[in-house]
Amino acid sequence: MSLQDILNNYRPIIEEELKRALPISDPQLSPFYGMMHYHLGWTDENFATQSQAGGKRLRPVLCLLACQAVGGEPQQVLPAAVAIELIHNFSLLHDDIEDNSPTRRHRATVWKVWGRPQAINAGDGMFALAHLALQRLSETGLPDDRVLVAWQVFDQACLALCEGQYLDMSFEDRLDVDVDQYLTMIRRKTAALLSCSTWLGALLGSGDASLAARYARFGENLGMAFQIEDDILGIWGKEKVTGKPQAGDIRQRKKSLPIVYALQQETSLPASEQRVHRVYRREVIDEDAIEIVLDSLQALGARQYARQMALDYHRQALAELEATGIENEGQTGLRELATLLVNRQY
Amino acid sequence: MSLQDILNNYRPIIEEELKRALPISDPQLSPFYGMMHYHLGWTDENFATQSQAGGKRLRPVLCLLACQAVGGEPQQVLPAAVAIELIHNFSLLHDDIEDNSPTRRHRATVWKVWGRPQAINAGDGMFALAHLALQRLSETGLPDDRVLVAWQVFDQACLALCEGQYLDMSFEDRLDVDVDQYLTMIRRKTAALLSCSTWLGALLGSGDASLAARYARFGENLGMAFQIEDDILGIWGKEKVTGKPQAGDIRQRKKSLPIVYALQQETSLPASEQRVHRVYRREVIDEDAIEIVLDSLQALGARQYARQMALDYHRQALAELEATGIENEGQTGLRELATLLVNRQY
Repeated sequence: MSLQDILNNYRPIIEEELKRALPISDPQLSPFYGMMHYHLGWTDENFATQSQAGGKRLRPVLCLLACQAVGGEPQQVLPAAVAIELIHNFSLLHDDIEDNSPTRRHRATVWKVWGRPQAINAGDGMFALAHLALQRLSETGLPDDRVLVAWQVFDQACLALCEGQYLDMSFEDRLDVDVDQYLTMIRRKTAALLSCSTWLGALLGSGDASLAARYARFGENLGMAFQIEDDILGIWGKEKVTGKPQAGDIRQRKKSLPIVYALQQETSLPASEQRVHRVYRREVIDEDAIEIVLDSLQALGARQYARQMALDYHRQALAELEATGIENEGQTGLRELATLLVNRQY
Repeated sequence: MSLQDILNNYRPIIEEELKRALPISDPQLSPFYGMMHYHLGWTDENFATQSQAGGKRLRPVLCLLACQAVGGEPQQVLPAAVAIELIHNFSLLHDDIEDNSPTRRHRATVWKVWGRPQAINAGDGMFALAHLALQRLSETGLPDDRVLVAWQVFDQACLALCEGQYLDMSFEDRLDVDVDQYLTMIRRKTAALLSCSTWLGALLGSGDASLAARYARFGENLGMAFQIEDDILGIWGKEKVTGKPQAGDIRQRKKSLPIVYALQQETSLPASEQRVHRVYRREVIDEDAIEIVLDSLQALGARQYARQMALDYHRQALAELEATGIENEGQTGLRELATLLVNRQY
């Protein structure tokens, strides 16, 4: 199966539950909810119904597959899957403001259309709605104590997300970020929510905390691999494939893994040879500067280093799956998904 | 007892629980938590310990008094009281960005010190921490089903808060807001969280949903009265008392109740006599313009109108308390607090 096939399999029930989680009550409030609907790809800027690619829905699919793998009933776990997708989208809404990004998924970002104040507030509303969505777990017949544990896991992931975003922003003005600090950052910013997805799927589906812990570690390692692959794509991915200009992450001075690795390697070189440092200190990064960075990354083996690390995390992720001894359709789906995610096209 | 006495009574246990809810884990993350500590009045801009007035802690006090009134154990309900205070402060953090406010409680706002991106994210972190604080209810011996209901009430209030903020911001460019729309807005933006405070206090303290509903309505009506009094203070309150320049709300073109009432009354006057409309359409509101508005409000009886409405809500709030037939120290505290809040100094 292709990545798209696996994702599309669950898409209809995910979209249905997402829509249930974001109703419009009072007509006075319809633009408030409309901004969220727009962000999720359901409407255009005038709130006319539209079917846009509102994201891969990767996290809810991971959650439902993990549930299926442990023998649970995906329909019962759907509220958690959707709550996680809402948290992911809440964070994108705010990240776009924080990063000053004018577009997402080939459309204007919410703040670009409705202004920063309303966009901040729409994100906050989505944060609350994510919790209300999660509470629907109580209606699907799950025991109270399990729902309470799910709630805890969920908000710990939300907090980790914010901690990771803090670290990421704090790296912006620094050239001395090392690989360990980078890994701490992405563990929170990206891996925590993927981990939460498989954790909750397995926990709610089985009630078995130690089994769920394995799926949590699967998700976490997969999240690390996924982010590092994203970093590679952000530098060497073709625009045709990623939808973003090639080397965009260099232009935006992102502290992605290949860059952090190169900066760290350069510290043992004489100052005159610290080319990435020099470019990152410039006011403007033009095409020539990008060429210099690409050259340096090549000379330092930064791409191979990052690729190897992604593969290591991918291997650890699969090892967690194997250790469960489970073999079924859900498990196969997780395994295929993991492998497809670290082998995306360049 | 004075307002301050009632508030101070519970202050030590509230501050202690608040601090427990906002620990600093990793030194790398200390500025992330530091921004929240600063906002709550515990540190200065350099994160040096400081004891500032970090707000009245009105909402947690209402929660604990309601708990006490229904015969509950305040210590058991403390996590909810503190979670509500954190939600209140999360919303202030974001409101300050959305309103572009440079100061709060005589200090620079978080966004003013650390920039908007970090301030948005610190607010998000506080939102997640509020939920983690609420989860501590499970540790104080409350039954799971009661904790789950509390969680629901809590996030419904969070959502209402965002809905109210949406409405408030959407009123900014409008002169046709009527009193009903204004009341819908403050019911969500202000009254919902005060209602949540007394609701949760009574619900968690007694487990009696219909008794809790009375306390919820007490809190809601009190919230309406409280906000309308705030509106009156925002126009006629002396700077010495409020800490804000007199008539500040006129300068900022706020759609507070006296203004909304005046705008609505003016629609039945000939255009030449619509003085508040004219001033609110101006580019700049100078001292002369403020005088014109104050004159018009006087002529239209806007202050008396607002004051009467605040007293009506106050009366309804007290009627809910009386209807419970409860008489004890907690109940007396709530009654006194309500009366003091609608009779603040001008």
